[in-house]
Amino acid sequence: MPGFEATLARDAQTVENALTDLIKNKTCPPRLQEAMLHAVSGPAKRLRPFLLMETARLFSVADAMSLPAALSLECAHCYSLVHDDLPCMDDDSLRRGRPALHVAYDEATAILAGDALLTLAFEILSGAKTIQPAIKLMLIGELGAAASTIVSGQMLDLAAEGRFETSRMPQRLDEAQIFDLQSRKTGALICYAARAGALLGGADAEKISRLTRYGEALGLLYQLADDLLDATGSSEKAGKAVAKDAKAGKATFVALLGVQAARTMLEKLAGQARAAVEHFDKAENLRALPAYLAARVSE
Amino acid sequence: MPGFEATLARDAQTVENALTDLIKNKTCPPRLQEAMLHAVSGPAKRLRPFLLMETARLFSVADAMSLPAALSLECAHCYSLVHDDLPCMDDDSLRRGRPALHVAYDEATAILAGDALLTLAFEILSGAKTIQPAIKLMLIGELGAAASTIVSGQMLDLAAEGRFETSRMPQRLDEAQIFDLQSRKTGALICYAARAGALLGGADAEKISRLTRYGEALGLLYQLADDLLDATGSSEKAGKAVAKDAKAGKATFVALLGVQAARTMLEKLAGQARAAVEHFDKAENLRALPAYLAARVSE
Repeated sequence: MPGFEATLARDAQTVENALTDLIKNKTCPPRLQEAMLHAVSGPAKRLRPFLLMETARLFSVADAMSLPAALSLECAHCYSLVHDDLPCMDDDSLRRGRPALHVAYDEATAILAGDALLTLAFEILSGAKTIQPAIKLMLIGELGAAASTIVSGQMLDLAAEGRFETSRMPQRLDEAQIFDLQSRKTGALICYAARAGALLGGADAEKISRLTRYGEALGLLYQLADDLLDATGSSEKAGKAVAKDAKAGKATFVALLGVQAARTMLEKLAGQARAAVEHFDKAENLRALPAYLAARVSE
Repeated sequence: MPGFEATLARDAQTVENALTDLIKNKTCPPRLQEAMLHAVSGPAKRLRPFLLMETARLFSVADAMSLPAALSLECAHCYSLVHDDLPCMDDDSLRRGRPALHVAYDEATAILAGDALLTLAFEILSGAKTIQPAIKLMLIGELGAAASTIVSGQMLDLAAEGRFETSRMPQRLDEAQIFDLQSRKTGALICYAARAGALLGGADAEKISRLTRYGEALGLLYQLADDLLDATGSSEKAGKAVAKDAKAGKATFVALLGVQAARTMLEKLAGQARAAVEHFDKAENLRALPAYLAARVSE
């Protein structure tokens, strides 16, 4: 059996290949298609689809059944990156070590490619032949709720920067407000990933609840690691511009508590995530994932 | 029984009220919520939800069952208007006689409100308690396909303006290409409206096919009427800026064939639409609709 990192890499490749094929088979204007391909490709860990497929594997769900749900989720994630990177949003010109979509193409194309990817996420789910209708509807409902939550999170994030104030002064959020913002902005889709795998597996309420807790802790950990990377890492390592948060006055734990306390919190969240999947069989990879994500910033 | 215009007005009010209530009951940041409310309100005929509900009524479907599908459709339509109006797209500052969303708020808020409305369209469908699961999945699949098609249509429209050429020269499209562009851009959601009503009503293949033809003719008619209004109408009547198509070098039938030939085509499409629903009982309103839309521009 391949180890954790080999499985992560293999799944990432499977997801990227399948998503690329799927978009290539869509009938749409060439420029839109190329932009969508740009948006879903490039070096990436594919954390969310990996998490969905690994959670489904706990319940012996075949990859053929979980893959469409994983592709749908990755489409929703890539759409959010494309729109968040726009000049009027986070104004990021680098993504996965390559030009952001609106830089590689133009703003109109980026907005439309994002719209098309969000739509595609729901098309994939509704058309997935390997998933039972009742489960499909649950997934569509939960993906809709999660996608709605990440929009709220992005809105709160921009508001916290003072964007909508005449003074343009960044707001000073407290810990609870930052938790809320980040669990919406990053947590929602990561949590959906863990829940979707459980739903595909027909998990009982108690197992769904454990995996939800796992997803919640992992979502916060992931965002915290990202913020730490922004504060302390290089843009080569991050694959995008760094030191942007402080400049934009972004509300992050790192800004509130400092790098050391943020690292301590990172360890705590990794422990919580691990504990939530302690009693599952075949959860070696889910138990390895938190430490792997935390290690990105503690080298 | 109320006549055609009274039913149209009553349904428009029902849809606006229900959509407003639904958004007010959503948990999301106040600014996002207000922007979504702005996007779905204002004087509008609500053609798509009316068409969906009227088609469903042919099959004696209760409004309580068709209304959620109608609200979902109107969300998808309003999202497309908000994104199309953006400065990097059609750069329209007036919509329904009021400031476009990015003018009333800002670009980031408009993009996010559009994203949230598209997401909401799928959330409403997946959560609709009055619709059977199998029909829900069909509607989600068809709405996804239609939403994907309108993105293609907008992309072709921008390309036809020469946006993506270094020369910035508008392309000269032939009649078939304009048909293709417009059936994607405007036709897809109107056609979905007619099909969705038929699907909700459990219509057989032949009836679905007739209503699809009705929707197709009506979609082309609607866009043609809009183009004629742009070429010949006032901005008060249109509720948005006019004479913009010629300025932008937009590919329209009016630009290709002239006003008189476009009016002749309008009459022809109205006849085709009427003929498609000739043999249905209770289709008085569907038969009245084409002439009503055509009359907007022939006064």
